[in-house]
Amino acid sequence: MNEKNIPDIVVSRLPRYLQVLKQLLDEGNATTSSNELGYCLGLTPAQIRKDLSMFGGFGKQGTGYNIPFLIDRLNEILHLDRQWLIALVGVGDLGHALARYQGFTGGRFRICLLFDREPSLIGNKVGELTIRDSKEMIPLIKDSGIQIAMITVPPDEAQDVASSLVKAGVRAILNYAPVVLRLPPKVQVQNIDPELKLEHMTFYLE
Amino acid sequence: MNEKNIPDIVVSRLPRYLQVLKQLLDEGNATTSSNELGYCLGLTPAQIRKDLSMFGGFGKQGTGYNIPFLIDRLNEILHLDRQWLIALVGVGDLGHALARYQGFTGGRFRICLLFDREPSLIGNKVGELTIRDSKEMIPLIKDSGIQIAMITVPPDEAQDVASSLVKAGVRAILNYAPVVLRLPPKVQVQNIDPELKLEHMTFYLE
Repeated sequence: MNEKNIPDIVVSRLPRYLQVLKQLLDEGNATTSSNELGYCLGLTPAQIRKDLSMFGGFGKQGTGYNIPFLIDRLNEILHLDRQWLIALVGVGDLGHALARYQGFTGGRFRICLLFDREPSLIGNKVGELTIRDSKEMIPLIKDSGIQIAMITVPPDEAQDVASSLVKAGVRAILNYAPVVLRLPPKVQVQNIDPELKLEHMTFYLE
Repeated sequence: MNEKNIPDIVVSRLPRYLQVLKQLLDEGNATTSSNELGYCLGLTPAQIRKDLSMFGGFGKQGTGYNIPFLIDRLNEILHLDRQWLIALVGVGDLGHALARYQGFTGGRFRICLLFDREPSLIGNKVGELTIRDSKEMIPLIKDSGIQIAMITVPPDEAQDVASSLVKAGVRAILNYAPVVLRLPPKVQVQNIDPELKLEHMTFYLE
């Protein structure tokens, strides 16, 4: 199957496969099975086999999946065999914490531009990065060729910031503001919202 | 349908319905349609109708869905008609930002206990809360009856912290550490991992 035709629901699971496979490798394993992967991911072994078969059958009956090979292939499919630069807009508590975060695996994601509109923040440093004026956002991002942005501004500013980012050429937005962004379909949006995750879990609590 | 039998994939969408409905209400709407909800959520109108019908048919042909009624009903289903207290473990940059965050809608989630094992942090205040020693975690959480915890410790500490939380009676964990936690199935776990979201989006970038 052509990679472009993979359903988004399957794509959404691939980063979790990658995470579990790296954890299994770190724990000293060289191979795994659809049973083990299913257990770790809360999916059925049949689902695992179906997902992975879309990329050309990585597993062999009886011997299981070769973990390093599968990791390499998933990295390639997800375009993680390179470094991605990120612009971050909104350097409050959360933006500050993200800008200082060094934990992205193998340095494959690197925040390299910070913006805020608050005069008292503009010009300040976070680690080695200087906070720039949000007014400079469009030209600076255009010049840099950056395709990914994180939004950590207050909810009522998020839509305007997102629209500006799209004008600047950004094609993927990780949105931390608790609002639903309305953007052209060509733009990828993922939301990080702890409240939604908590609300999912309280369904199961008494 | 009995609420306990709702598939988890449907439950996972309900908080997003709630978010979109509140946004539509804030924008001055009193009713909505499966078409509008589908557009906002990236789902088909048929999927919306199917999901909402599980809770007893909120919509009327031709007049659409009554937004305030639907919000009330979803709050009730998700057990959001009360306040939930939360314990947070790991008061680094991110934990600090979360502890200071006041944005949970209507105060329905409130972080009220902070823990860290770092001696230089124990006893410090974040807002009105004092950072406690992680060693006190199990008795303090047991006494409080808290059922929800957030984990913002380094990855290699997360599994031990999670196991202690379960011993303390916690039944729902929002995990910010980039590891897969292995816990009894009765415990709800949701993960917040920006790297997984970024990796999902890079699939679509060149």
